[in-house]
Amino acid sequence: MSMSTTHAPSPVSARPRIVIVGCGFGGLEAARALADADVDITVVDRTNHHLFQPLLYQVATAGLASPAISAPIRRLFREQRNVTSLLGEVVDIDTQGQAVLLQTGESLPYDHLVVAAGATHSYFGRDEWAAHAPGIKTLADATEVRRRILMAYEEAERIHDPVQREALLTFVVIGGGPTGVEMAGTLAEISRRTLPGEFRHFEPSHAHVLLLEGGSRVLQAMPPELSRRAEEQLKALGVDVRTGAKVTHIDEQGLEVETASPAEGAAAAGEAGARYTIRSKTVIWAAGVAASPLGRILQRHTGCETDRAGRVTVEADLSLPGHPEVWVIGDLAAARSHHGNELPKPVPGVSPAAKQMGRHAAANLRRRLQGQATLPFHYRDYGNLATIGRNSAVVDLTSPVGPIRFSGWTAWLFWLVAHIYFLIGFRNRLMVLFDWASAYWSSQRYARIIANNEPHRSRAARAPDQPPAAPPPGEA
Amino acid sequence: MSMSTTHAPSPVSARPRIVIVGCGFGGLEAARALADADVDITVVDRTNHHLFQPLLYQVATAGLASPAISAPIRRLFREQRNVTSLLGEVVDIDTQGQAVLLQTGESLPYDHLVVAAGATHSYFGRDEWAAHAPGIKTLADATEVRRRILMAYEEAERIHDPVQREALLTFVVIGGGPTGVEMAGTLAEISRRTLPGEFRHFEPSHAHVLLLEGGSRVLQAMPPELSRRAEEQLKALGVDVRTGAKVTHIDEQGLEVETASPAEGAAAAGEAGARYTIRSKTVIWAAGVAASPLGRILQRHTGCETDRAGRVTVEADLSLPGHPEVWVIGDLAAARSHHGNELPKPVPGVSPAAKQMGRHAAANLRRRLQGQATLPFHYRDYGNLATIGRNSAVVDLTSPVGPIRFSGWTAWLFWLVAHIYFLIGFRNRLMVLFDWASAYWSSQRYARIIANNEPHRSRAARAPDQPPAAPPPGEA
Repeated sequence: MSMSTTHAPSPVSARPRIVIVGCGFGGLEAARALADADVDITVVDRTNHHLFQPLLYQVATAGLASPAISAPIRRLFREQRNVTSLLGEVVDIDTQGQAVLLQTGESLPYDHLVVAAGATHSYFGRDEWAAHAPGIKTLADATEVRRRILMAYEEAERIHDPVQREALLTFVVIGGGPTGVEMAGTLAEISRRTLPGEFRHFEPSHAHVLLLEGGSRVLQAMPPELSRRAEEQLKALGVDVRTGAKVTHIDEQGLEVETASPAEGAAAAGEAGARYTIRSKTVIWAAGVAASPLGRILQRHTGCETDRAGRVTVEADLSLPGHPEVWVIGDLAAARSHHGNELPKPVPGVSPAAKQMGRHAAANLRRRLQGQATLPFHYRDYGNLATIGRNSAVVDLTSPVGPIRFSGWTAWLFWLVAHIYFLIGFRNRLMVLFDWASAYWSSQRYARIIANNEPHRSRAARAPDQPPAAPPPGEA
Repeated sequence: MSMSTTHAPSPVSARPRIVIVGCGFGGLEAARALADADVDITVVDRTNHHLFQPLLYQVATAGLASPAISAPIRRLFREQRNVTSLLGEVVDIDTQGQAVLLQTGESLPYDHLVVAAGATHSYFGRDEWAAHAPGIKTLADATEVRRRILMAYEEAERIHDPVQREALLTFVVIGGGPTGVEMAGTLAEISRRTLPGEFRHFEPSHAHVLLLEGGSRVLQAMPPELSRRAEEQLKALGVDVRTGAKVTHIDEQGLEVETASPAEGAAAAGEAGARYTIRSKTVIWAAGVAASPLGRILQRHTGCETDRAGRVTVEADLSLPGHPEVWVIGDLAAARSHHGNELPKPVPGVSPAAKQMGRHAAANLRRRLQGQATLPFHYRDYGNLATIGRNSAVVDLTSPVGPIRFSGWTAWLFWLVAHIYFLIGFRNRLMVLFDWASAYWSSQRYARIIANNEPHRSRAARAPDQPPAAPPPGEA
């Protein structure tokens, strides 16, 4: 193990060096759980902010500004003196030499490693769809989706050809999971509540919002009854929900859909196997998820197993098989929940699970440092909730007396309180509450900026034949 | 005049068609002043938002989120039914055929035209400096500057070479006008108040913030006494203010500065004509301003005069010479203020002047529609103010009893109230107040996101040898 690398936090330190890759829910919790441990922690993330992903769809739909759901990572660790945070992209992990390699060529030696690099969207091998149907996993993704949605309305005001305008006013969300449901519901609200009255050449409330789901119902992690209620609430908002609708092609004109057999998709329109096209200029991908490429990299180096989504199969204690000094947590881990003599159950890819894994891996790491045996991971499932739009959501809570299920306005209020509560940082909580209170009363959306579309003036400033401008007197 | 163009707002309308190019302070006021006129107005802007430029430096220094100083243009005109707003870039003006040409190839015919396209920064013919010293005129500019400032600190934590680290921790602002003074003061605050405690390998408060001004004092539009006070306040914040410092070269390593003769720059360091270099990775341009290229385009078509900064010399009533149907206002106009028998005085390039010109051009336009004579423009100068940092500003007010001048905390409070008051939109005013109250008490800065640096995951998600991810069951 090399001690000459620049990033040994302190060359003379005998304290164990912990490297945590990724500062999402899992990585952040792991680092915090080691706050009073006598270790040197380095947290590496490729962005400078922890992102509250459950509200990312609000940035994509212009309801929240990016800073409202982001907290600077080094601010979060300001008081935790055993943490050094670094902005950097991890490109490889040397599991033999025990070092993490950054894109800049630097390496971070570790005694213990926590890999919490998360997941991204996946196009199931159809990467050419990415250009036409962006997904929403990062702030950059979200502002790009926001730009596309707002630009479609802007162009519809400029373009008077009815066929083109209809394609501009057709918004398609692919995937009926929580993100897809939230996106579709919010898109419908934008067309019906936010924009009416602002255009002179068309009526925004005539926009067509479709939610396509390949399976037989939306929100498949929920009980069927709540899926049905969510579908009803979506339809009440004006969303055209199509289950049993498999996307077979996407390009810049729109997409092609194949109708599933009735057994697969109960509400499928038309006969099974029928294909039809939807002309749309704004297609949003909320369908597939794949683990970070670091999963495959660990597989290559250690021979560990990964599942079809690229997630690493971990030991019961969340360590990497054969590497008790490496922990894999969050969306990158194919983990199982252990409870007494029950059969281990797969852990879902949700933020409460990532946080629990972060705390558990940190606790096991401390046990190992103290020479104690590690404990198997047990996932506490508190339930599931999804919002649909203003005043509508579905909630499915786990309780000792059985499941508690409700929907509508009370579910929406519950969802709101839960999300505000878990949002990182007091400042952001207040901001988001303020934004939502304001949006609720006015139906307005705060962050309607088409930013990426703006030409960078320093390069575009001068006309080709324009002579250089004269300096004002006295300026450099 | 062609009537076949798609954008005649209503083909059968006999109402005069007004086109307003640019929705900054001038264009927005002109359109609003025509609210009850029997005309069809089209407002064209290349962004979808009106920008409150006086606070743009706050976005560049991570104090405010972009939406806090931006209002969607079509939202501002929602109730004004005689306005159609269009997102588009004007590339030419056909003053003979009376039509405005958009980049998309479309043309907007007009009976009356208001050109309010504003200004951008100018590198005085040294456009190669743009890449190394971005200016701040648009939201895109501001987020790019924010990215550079935050990235410099991030890299300083990663890079341990003392020479490189010093260049990363040296921030240079070029130009001692209001924007330069605000930027330098805020940069000093970030290093001294916001960031301390967050880095493990260096002390952020040791960062070096320089303000370079070619002339003999900062804030040259102010009386010398207030310039002196501003300089004192900047120095108290830790800014290294250098007047008589002319920039002769900028590249990715830093810049070269030439010391002016003592007559030019009173506080110049070293002997006159001496050259020295400053190693800096973050150089910000706040020096030169040039009018929109549309000024030169009008000159080419009509033979009108433009000054060295590309501004159009207009008639006393703000119309284009020889074209009583075209009005040029705001930073694009080299206008003069007329008052009784006094000698006409140049109108400064500030937002109150742009707003007054907008209202005046609209009033003259209505007079012309009614066959009345137009009136010469008179600029009401209420004074001048500039902020320097927390609790410090300088104010120079014009009053019937003579100038009122003050600085320090009261001036800062005055500046704050004035800016909040003039900020467009109740929503934004509250937001900004909230952000500032929070920043004031905590010294924290809200919007510390390095967004542009984030890789777009949809393309970068898969490792080269990674097979396509499997679809989760039931998803499209």
